[in-house]
Amino acid sequence: MLPGRLCHACRVLKVHGGGTWSESHQEALRRATRRFADWTFGDRPDPSTEVWVGSGFRGAVAAALPRLRAVVVPWAGPSRELIQEVRSTPGLSLHNLHHNAGATAEMAVALLLAVAKSVVPRDRALRQGDWGHRGRAASARLLQGGTALVLGYGAIGRRIARICRALGMRVAAVRRRRLPDDPQWVHGVGELGRLLRSADAVLCSLPLTPETEGLMGERELAALPPHAIVVNVGRGPVFDESALYRALAEGRIWGAGLDVWWNYPPGGDRGAPSSLPFHELENVAMTPHCGGWAEGIDTHRFRELARLLRRLSAGDWTANQVDLERGY
Amino acid sequence: MLPGRLCHACRVLKVHGGGTWSESHQEALRRATRRFADWTFGDRPDPSTEVWVGSGFRGAVAAALPRLRAVVVPWAGPSRELIQEVRSTPGLSLHNLHHNAGATAEMAVALLLAVAKSVVPRDRALRQGDWGHRGRAASARLLQGGTALVLGYGAIGRRIARICRALGMRVAAVRRRRLPDDPQWVHGVGELGRLLRSADAVLCSLPLTPETEGLMGERELAALPPHAIVVNVGRGPVFDESALYRALAEGRIWGAGLDVWWNYPPGGDRGAPSSLPFHELENVAMTPHCGGWAEGIDTHRFRELARLLRRLSAGDWTANQVDLERGY
Repeated sequence: MLPGRLCHACRVLKVHGGGTWSESHQEALRRATRRFADWTFGDRPDPSTEVWVGSGFRGAVAAALPRLRAVVVPWAGPSRELIQEVRSTPGLSLHNLHHNAGATAEMAVALLLAVAKSVVPRDRALRQGDWGHRGRAASARLLQGGTALVLGYGAIGRRIARICRALGMRVAAVRRRRLPDDPQWVHGVGELGRLLRSADAVLCSLPLTPETEGLMGERELAALPPHAIVVNVGRGPVFDESALYRALAEGRIWGAGLDVWWNYPPGGDRGAPSSLPFHELENVAMTPHCGGWAEGIDTHRFRELARLLRRLSAGDWTANQVDLERGY
Repeated sequence: MLPGRLCHACRVLKVHGGGTWSESHQEALRRATRRFADWTFGDRPDPSTEVWVGSGFRGAVAAALPRLRAVVVPWAGPSRELIQEVRSTPGLSLHNLHHNAGATAEMAVALLLAVAKSVVPRDRALRQGDWGHRGRAASARLLQGGTALVLGYGAIGRRIARICRALGMRVAAVRRRRLPDDPQWVHGVGELGRLLRSADAVLCSLPLTPETEGLMGERELAALPPHAIVVNVGRGPVFDESALYRALAEGRIWGAGLDVWWNYPPGGDRGAPSSLPFHELENVAMTPHCGGWAEGIDTHRFRELARLLRRLSAGDWTANQVDLERGY
């Protein structure tokens, strides 16, 4: 591809923005993709639409769009319902964006370090003039020289691995199945039990699939050393809720930094993130699923979306393609 | 030097442990240095003492120790009083340890990320069932792609620089004077004003000297962009207390992570860390000067101390030497 121009293999795609897009977002998208995408927005997609971007896609819509070929979710994790809708429509592929992998990896390391250095309880104490944590070595873990076990070797996991290595940690990663090209420190999930035994930190960025649900259960948590720190920025139910609560409450692990949960409030604004009182634990740092958000993140979102549409326009229909069987 | 054995140039040093050392620490030190150091502890140093390790050194002591050549503080920052005592004793050198540079760099990045991701206020809200921060991009800064300005290019600053680079940040460092061997991104302090203008984060690990006191004043803070984050793990008074408070309270910078302070409680346990109400600010993460502490840190301390004594025993009297004029 030539920068800024269409090469002979590229064409202008007919793209429909489904769901709600503000006028400024519509304008930003049109500008970023003007050489290879022709947009419609709103409730009535043009019958010549080839790519659907955004929410609101239903299999029933496809009947009126004979040239529809791909659905793009401009975020990382498509819902199970959407995957079902796409699967039930023959000839359609599903694509996602990894524009917030950096933000999410930063959140994972923020939670790891917050727990390792007891930032939340130390902050609370010092605000009340209490210096008790000073010189108390037991309030903090040194990460340097320890081992980080990264669960999930996608866009987020690779970034987490790089940062942990810069912290002076050894890094091992676990993915569904090791590929021949993977570096030596990447392992198949069959090795998980062995790797947990020597992990000083476990950082999870796994999606929720039938295979990952409950992957970290009673037995896996029991395999961790007592000073281990657990971080989850993937999906809550990858961890067994009650097993993790008990390991933390009984001090069988050092602590946990959790951005993703088992319960999400229906209205979105108020509600306990778990049926168990994680909020009473001192050794937990908790945030309301905001890893992927940061000021200016939409700039990254639109840039990634433009890149993806450009690849689709060039005929690369495998770009950022979601595996409909595996669900990620 | 041959590993584990003395080479022809090495000798057994006469070392005195000043101040209080527990029996287990005395034993650990003797074991770690048994090939090149012969220790006494307690109030009566052997007259043949060549190296004083620990606290309690006074110029008056030196009169009874004609072979005394070096004083070692087994931590990073010797007090101004100790520097004065050593300066007033001719022929004596002062040495320190950087064993906790890794722990302190981790604390700096922990505070940077805690502030960037609003970990403390988000944790507090979610403990009360408040999900308001979810999807609120304005609650977080993305560090990736930004510029980190590292003040101080010693053992801590170098580690901070490495971690920030792994976070995807550009890094610039400032030291008193640029040396010919320094990488291109290391600058002399004369460049500070220019560098502040494009800094997304400023991380300070500077010692307190007449040159660094108040280095970050009203004008320097005003030069920072409004989204900049300030972190201090060096010494509090490198920042002008009231200028920093005002910049934070008026929202002229994004936030600050502070581990070091202007006021230390005389008894050590209770007291406000500043005469200004930093503890009322939401955009501050505050810890009571505990960057250098972590579980197991004494293992690193003794290992570094053994390494230093070994170098002194080999005749390298410049190892970890403190510049008595500059005070670090």
